[in-house]
Amino acid sequence: MTDSDALRACPVGILTTDAFDNISSFIHQATDAGHDFIVTPISQPRFERVLGIDQPVNVIQTWRDSPAFERDDLVLKSADWSDVVVGSLSPWLNFEDPAFRLNSELALKQEIAWACHLSLLAVIFPTLSGGIADTARALNGAVTSMSYTQMWVQVPLTLENEITPNQSWRNWNQLRTLTEHSPKIQVALELTSKLPEDEQLLDMWLAEPIKAVIIPANVFVSNAKGYPVLGKRHQSFVKKLMSGLRPNIIVTLPSTQLHPSASPESYQEYIRFLNRNLPELNDVERFSIGYQDFLQAPLQPLMDNLDNQTYETFERDPIKYQQYEKAVYHALLDRVKAGSDIETVIMVVGAGRGPLVNCCLRAATKAERKVHVYAVEKNPNAFVTLQNAKADVWHDKVTLVFADMRKWKPTRKCDILVSELLGSFGDNELSPECLDGAQKFLKEDGISIPASYTAFVAPLASTKLYNEVAAYKDLAHFETPYVVMFQQVCELAASKPLWTFEHPNKTPDVPVDSDPINNLHNLRYKQVSFEVKNGMVMHGLAGYFESVLYKDVMISIHPETHSPGMFSWFPIFFPVKVPVQVPQGAIVTVDFWRQTDRKKVWYEWSVAVTSGDGKSDYTILPLHNVGGRSSWVGL
Amino acid sequence: MTDSDALRACPVGILTTDAFDNISSFIHQATDAGHDFIVTPISQPRFERVLGIDQPVNVIQTWRDSPAFERDDLVLKSADWSDVVVGSLSPWLNFEDPAFRLNSELALKQEIAWACHLSLLAVIFPTLSGGIADTARALNGAVTSMSYTQMWVQVPLTLENEITPNQSWRNWNQLRTLTEHSPKIQVALELTSKLPEDEQLLDMWLAEPIKAVIIPANVFVSNAKGYPVLGKRHQSFVKKLMSGLRPNIIVTLPSTQLHPSASPESYQEYIRFLNRNLPELNDVERFSIGYQDFLQAPLQPLMDNLDNQTYETFERDPIKYQQYEKAVYHALLDRVKAGSDIETVIMVVGAGRGPLVNCCLRAATKAERKVHVYAVEKNPNAFVTLQNAKADVWHDKVTLVFADMRKWKPTRKCDILVSELLGSFGDNELSPECLDGAQKFLKEDGISIPASYTAFVAPLASTKLYNEVAAYKDLAHFETPYVVMFQQVCELAASKPLWTFEHPNKTPDVPVDSDPINNLHNLRYKQVSFEVKNGMVMHGLAGYFESVLYKDVMISIHPETHSPGMFSWFPIFFPVKVPVQVPQGAIVTVDFWRQTDRKKVWYEWSVAVTSGDGKSDYTILPLHNVGGRSSWVGL
Repeated sequence: MTDSDALRACPVGILTTDAFDNISSFIHQATDAGHDFIVTPISQPRFERVLGIDQPVNVIQTWRDSPAFERDDLVLKSADWSDVVVGSLSPWLNFEDPAFRLNSELALKQEIAWACHLSLLAVIFPTLSGGIADTARALNGAVTSMSYTQMWVQVPLTLENEITPNQSWRNWNQLRTLTEHSPKIQVALELTSKLPEDEQLLDMWLAEPIKAVIIPANVFVSNAKGYPVLGKRHQSFVKKLMSGLRPNIIVTLPSTQLHPSASPESYQEYIRFLNRNLPELNDVERFSIGYQDFLQAPLQPLMDNLDNQTYETFERDPIKYQQYEKAVYHALLDRVKAGSDIETVIMVVGAGRGPLVNCCLRAATKAERKVHVYAVEKNPNAFVTLQNAKADVWHDKVTLVFADMRKWKPTRKCDILVSELLGSFGDNELSPECLDGAQKFLKEDGISIPASYTAFVAPLASTKLYNEVAAYKDLAHFETPYVVMFQQVCELAASKPLWTFEHPNKTPDVPVDSDPINNLHNLRYKQVSFEVKNGMVMHGLAGYFESVLYKDVMISIHPETHSPGMFSWFPIFFPVKVPVQVPQGAIVTVDFWRQTDRKKVWYEWSVAVTSGDGKSDYTILPLHNVGGRSSWVGL
Repeated sequence: MTDSDALRACPVGILTTDAFDNISSFIHQATDAGHDFIVTPISQPRFERVLGIDQPVNVIQTWRDSPAFERDDLVLKSADWSDVVVGSLSPWLNFEDPAFRLNSELALKQEIAWACHLSLLAVIFPTLSGGIADTARALNGAVTSMSYTQMWVQVPLTLENEITPNQSWRNWNQLRTLTEHSPKIQVALELTSKLPEDEQLLDMWLAEPIKAVIIPANVFVSNAKGYPVLGKRHQSFVKKLMSGLRPNIIVTLPSTQLHPSASPESYQEYIRFLNRNLPELNDVERFSIGYQDFLQAPLQPLMDNLDNQTYETFERDPIKYQQYEKAVYHALLDRVKAGSDIETVIMVVGAGRGPLVNCCLRAATKAERKVHVYAVEKNPNAFVTLQNAKADVWHDKVTLVFADMRKWKPTRKCDILVSELLGSFGDNELSPECLDGAQKFLKEDGISIPASYTAFVAPLASTKLYNEVAAYKDLAHFETPYVVMFQQVCELAASKPLWTFEHPNKTPDVPVDSDPINNLHNLRYKQVSFEVKNGMVMHGLAGYFESVLYKDVMISIHPETHSPGMFSWFPIFFPVKVPVQVPQGAIVTVDFWRQTDRKKVWYEWSVAVTSGDGKSDYTILPLHNVGGRSSWVGL
């Protein structure tokens, strides 16, 4: 087992709906057969009497006033083994019929109280049917008293009689929206033989708080030898869930009727086999371990100096500098004829500890062109490393300049201006403003690497990220973008471009030999609309960038064009204040602004959902981050 | 002019779109013709040059960097007369075309800054067209600097090419939702000749923050003598607006083409004529003056003792006690045969200062029945008044009991139990709990007055009430019901009943001779759905009650059955956390709970909006007031 296998290993448990008299022998058998835990009813069927059918009124009245179990009511009579037990709540709990609602709620609380008393791992609430609003209120009330024991709500992937293709998700979505995305209420997703045809209807579950996946015996098919295996789409979905969410997997008792060769171990062994055979992690995934769905504040490289570790990490990117080298190489080839003696002046602005300087020197060697490199850096700590490199390696091929590129007054101009100032959203680390200041170093026909960059957005679902932001309990965190390695997410629609910055800026906004008068030309505004096929919920916007370094040399973190193996940038996440329901076929319209004043740059955004024909407004969110009140990047 | 006329008098102003060179002579003429204020462009048409069409780039660049007016740009050159001037912003501001957006925003800010510098009464933003999201952001930014001067957005009642019948309202709704219902952005509603056919499309404007109503000349028709008058529906709508919102009314210059006999005074005089002839205020309206749309916390009569003024006010209700007297009268007639010597025992529980005791005595006299009245009261201050009444008036016809009705142990039982414990929502002042405790005084065949009461809810739009609640800037106030005299509101659909309490409670939950074991039988839950015809926004729920005192003797504050002239109860308002968009034809589903524990009673509520066919979820709100966390009534 490799390290990454260990990180992705899922506990496997076995579920029984039988109410055993002697649960401990069942537990023994189950663990002997290799299961990590068991799922059993908490109480015996006789406990259903508390619903009051054919019971004397006064008996029920007394129970209602102080609910207590009789010993024979319980399957789980003691805390023995509780560290391997998940309890199922009674299947007869009924929040739909007014006659049973109150007693169901009291019985629910009673079973939960007992499960918590025993410190069970979790309790499973039976499949949601009608009465979801009242169920939500009752569950929400009941989970407040739960701390160690978890609450999983059983949600089948498909329902028998679906009104819409994702009816079961809609039920769950209603429950968790009513309970304000309570982090105490999670999903036990029950696979069904029938899978929805549309792949997005599977993928959307990756954005949900799935703690367990129940795979009943009838979902397995028999292979040629009569052993239970999963069909191809089931396999692939289970593997996705394992990779992304590391859920508890729950199988049921073996059915030799369905699978002639099934033994008590069969399902469990097959699941572990799948679990061991997840696709290998790629470079980016390996780099990201521990960072998945973790909210990071974007860097403020103009206001703060990066530390050595940050440089160290990003210099290790195997792809980014390869692409920069390639860009400089082609620029040199285009700029100077082969065999010419002309020296090309390259200025690396924001040289950091020098990786781009090395790129330029390597590109020059490869292109067989003469170059002189200026390395401009404002961070005094990084500048020490530059001085070391000059003394030890670069010597007079490189001139070091300790300055802020926006203020430096060079004595000569350069042919190629190289910078790596991009953030996850392209312009969000103020590359446009920095390069506006630096382009006065550039000859009129000079080249900027990068030549341009474009920001992209897509509507995103992610209960995890929503809850991470909501946990701060203030408005400001809902109006702040975060750098995040996405894992438990699902895009509602493919991303679209917002705006592009091009360098050098040849418009009159940036005079040839001086600084721009003001920053108004770096304002941007774009409205983009997304047609959403399936009914989903939206928690925010995913942001990406694509950059043309030079001609066809690109770097990208946009999912469709992501530079393979490049790990320097995670995507950016712009939350929205409230989860937004997006009905099937609706249009999500996003308005996005890049705003600026004399001291800072910030984004504002808003989201509206309308009907496909534009005639109905379903949701209009207020403007987010008005005037940069919650988040901004300092100039 | 009566007092109530004075309270409803609307200022009348005149609007010109001409950019006068000499504005002061126009102002003179306008005020001489009886207008209270004028509306004029702030700047001359030449100011449009800042959009940049045919202008040298450097001139525009310079203006953009520090926008300043030239003297000839302005219609309003000084602060003379500014106390009677409203300024129109330039009609060429264009937030739709990317080429003009930035300069339009800068020009907008420049005009607003000048208007504020002059302390104009208000500025009017021209009719919203496209680019509403960007307009909203720009306006939102601009109004932050406005304090004295108001911002009115001109919104025509109907548009030429409407996609939906309320397209213009949708534009306004988008703007104000984007700006988070900013109280600084208000409506100047422009009447149009064409009115929407559906009356609700007019009434919904009563829920909007209308500060001015513009009535252009072409909306007037000529009467037989060639004088301008309004058509019937226009008249009635203008009167509604005057009664409910007291807006500034703005007319335009006289058009003798349209109205041969029109003089500079005509429109203004006609408007004042309408204003003087508003329908007389009824008793309830007169009683409510000063309380309209004012949020009051509901009474906590069990925890707090009412003060003398509160008793004084409510005892003046001309209708309520009349109905109680009638109810007792009929109960006495039914209970005892005419001429019988049997004494009917009446217990008034929560007797206060005695108005119901008087009702009972009057009813007995009228019915010619012998009665003995017990007056039970827990408030020691009110009890003093009861003692005075007994000493001076009632003598031995009445026995006084100083006790909490839930704890008193009487030595005899009564025939009729009379109480007035109802709140605006019926059960919200804990009448059910009090009468559960009191019903042990009642003979098995005894009568409770009231016999039952039912709570009603309706989805409600009201920008005013939303903003009142939002101003507290916390969750708790969005989860608290308020007693409010509705004025600037509009129901999205007619109200529906939630639940009913009946007295005496004959179920086993309340034993005959003792207190109920617990309060579980007073839990209630109901889901009601409302079909909404027109696209609207919802800010909360209106709550009402209807009560059967005895047989067909009712009291009601439910709009369709409101007891005429009864002013003791204003409706109750349950807010929702965020304004909810309700598309035309959608279903608003409301879940409502009455919850209880041993110490308190509270309500929880939630709202969902779905498509008419139930297949799409438009909005799902979280549960409000979970576990009574924000509001409750103490037992």
